[in-house]
Amino acid sequence: MSEQQKRTEIGEIGEFGLIDQISSKFTNKNSSTLKGIGDDAAVFGSGDLLQLLSTDMLLEGVHFDLSYMPLQHLGYKAVAVNVSDIAAMNGLPKQITVSLGLSNRFSVEAIEELYKGIQFACEDYSVDLVGGDTTSSPSGLVISVAVIGEVQKEKVVYRKNAKENDIICVTGDLGGAFLGLQVLEREKAVFKENPEMQPDLEKYDFIVKRQLKPSARMDVIHELGDLGLVPTSMIDISDGLASELFHIAKNSEVGVTIYEDKLPIAKMTYDTAVEFNMDPMTCALNGGEDYELLFTIGQNDFEKIKNHADIATIGYVDKRANGLKMVTKNNNTVALQAQGWKHF
Amino acid sequence: MSEQQKRTEIGEIGEFGLIDQISSKFTNKNSSTLKGIGDDAAVFGSGDLLQLLSTDMLLEGVHFDLSYMPLQHLGYKAVAVNVSDIAAMNGLPKQITVSLGLSNRFSVEAIEELYKGIQFACEDYSVDLVGGDTTSSPSGLVISVAVIGEVQKEKVVYRKNAKENDIICVTGDLGGAFLGLQVLEREKAVFKENPEMQPDLEKYDFIVKRQLKPSARMDVIHELGDLGLVPTSMIDISDGLASELFHIAKNSEVGVTIYEDKLPIAKMTYDTAVEFNMDPMTCALNGGEDYELLFTIGQNDFEKIKNHADIATIGYVDKRANGLKMVTKNNNTVALQAQGWKHF
Repeated sequence: MSEQQKRTEIGEIGEFGLIDQISSKFTNKNSSTLKGIGDDAAVFGSGDLLQLLSTDMLLEGVHFDLSYMPLQHLGYKAVAVNVSDIAAMNGLPKQITVSLGLSNRFSVEAIEELYKGIQFACEDYSVDLVGGDTTSSPSGLVISVAVIGEVQKEKVVYRKNAKENDIICVTGDLGGAFLGLQVLEREKAVFKENPEMQPDLEKYDFIVKRQLKPSARMDVIHELGDLGLVPTSMIDISDGLASELFHIAKNSEVGVTIYEDKLPIAKMTYDTAVEFNMDPMTCALNGGEDYELLFTIGQNDFEKIKNHADIATIGYVDKRANGLKMVTKNNNTVALQAQGWKHF
Repeated sequence: MSEQQKRTEIGEIGEFGLIDQISSKFTNKNSSTLKGIGDDAAVFGSGDLLQLLSTDMLLEGVHFDLSYMPLQHLGYKAVAVNVSDIAAMNGLPKQITVSLGLSNRFSVEAIEELYKGIQFACEDYSVDLVGGDTTSSPSGLVISVAVIGEVQKEKVVYRKNAKENDIICVTGDLGGAFLGLQVLEREKAVFKENPEMQPDLEKYDFIVKRQLKPSARMDVIHELGDLGLVPTSMIDISDGLASELFHIAKNSEVGVTIYEDKLPIAKMTYDTAVEFNMDPMTCALNGGEDYELLFTIGQNDFEKIKNHADIATIGYVDKRANGLKMVTKNNNTVALQAQGWKHF
């Protein structure tokens, strides 16, 4: 087989393998580019106030299902997941652009619903909608958002500066968005079987909302600012805690140890996992789309957050050679696996 | 029919109507947002150096056809059309993000081809690739690019400041990309009828290249900088000259008069139009995707460009009340029509 005919499937190297392969061929030419590919957002600018840029694309049939995702929530979510990337750099979001690919299935009224959600999110996060692109799409809905943020030069937080003995922190609780999705998928299947059946979502309200209308944790970023606390590393939890710990460990060249009994799991998440015959811990470790923040802090800063109701300390940063581990409730030590989301 | 059930088709109000309707509901909250929706790029920042942000989305089956668009050219074009928006603000492009939606039809090798084109464009325009998002797509290829540019505060050019008696200028030549597309579509149809037929593209090389691999006119932006010439208004010609003249006229609250015999049309464009039984002038006025620059300058600046081989002066800015007109070769005056591209 000649070189020209070689065909490698994307699945063979995975999304992250593909990104590594491509980015290795690009070098930055502009002095204003301070951080390119490889963090939650790119960093650029000069002087004391730096700019951040991140982008996320949502495709119908891959990232959302309009049979249970209201358009208003979808608009909100499209903004929130991008703002979350700015939060993960310890920045403040300022401007967004929204590009839409729309099939003629969508009416003007439907698009207005979508923009209502975008508008609510712009208000909640103090972001200005400054542009975008609107075009027809042959089939599904495509939403591509780019967000600009700002951060003081001395406050920007990367994935790369976690140090040995740092404390690992997580905001909120984990696994809820994943189990919310399971509930929605189940109700959809039931409805398909029997359209007379009304979906029973009320008792799952909390986790369904985690899936349909996630929040970017800008509240925590503002609180850290008030506490004068700059994390040593940070990332948002979009692909699952374990996957994000691998990013921090790889970029910071460290190992991590976390404790199973410290993982923050809401009661409804736990109960629903059990109902679905799933292990709640696995859901917390590998369920994606919680959009909570994972960050590390120096031990000196522990006092500042130890009584914070919404920040859990789940472990510590270790030597690189010690790898990524979890101490289970039975005091066994197991290697962490990064399953994350696989879109390919 | 109740309010809830009302359904307005996007085609009824059009892309620009939709954008107007949506943007009227958003107000800017951040002092760093200097220009939001309604120009080629958004403008933000503070101090003497401002930032520009623009975004464009290309969808397979709408914006390109992979049966005749090589992936490398597509990658190049995706960057060039975004850089063109920065050029239209008189800025320099600095960073881009590229988000891809890919079906499993695409191999790693195919994606590398696409990125080769992106890389060539990044080199030609001195832009750094700083991020993006890669995800699976249920069917076609989706490319969404966001670009950041820089411009000195006193040099930023909007659509809105054209003044009465200004001179209207156009770079390069018009209609070529549109006729290149006609040739490609014809050859595709011939090939479908009879796969033995080899496409006869060589004699159309110039216009086919205008369609497949357009350039952003950064060379002109650098020259204007060297000449110390800041246009009073500017826009890039993506939807066709007539459509862009309407944007300048609307935003600047002026009228325009252009002269048919001044429109720059390449010989191959002219001859191909005739071959296709089309009016070359109509192709130059309404053919899209040339990515040339349309700008206005004060009369005092005329000396600086009057001998420029690649800038045509095509008319002048008039009173708003006089509307948009073209003086034909027979010295008749006709009202301009903005047909542009209609994706809906």
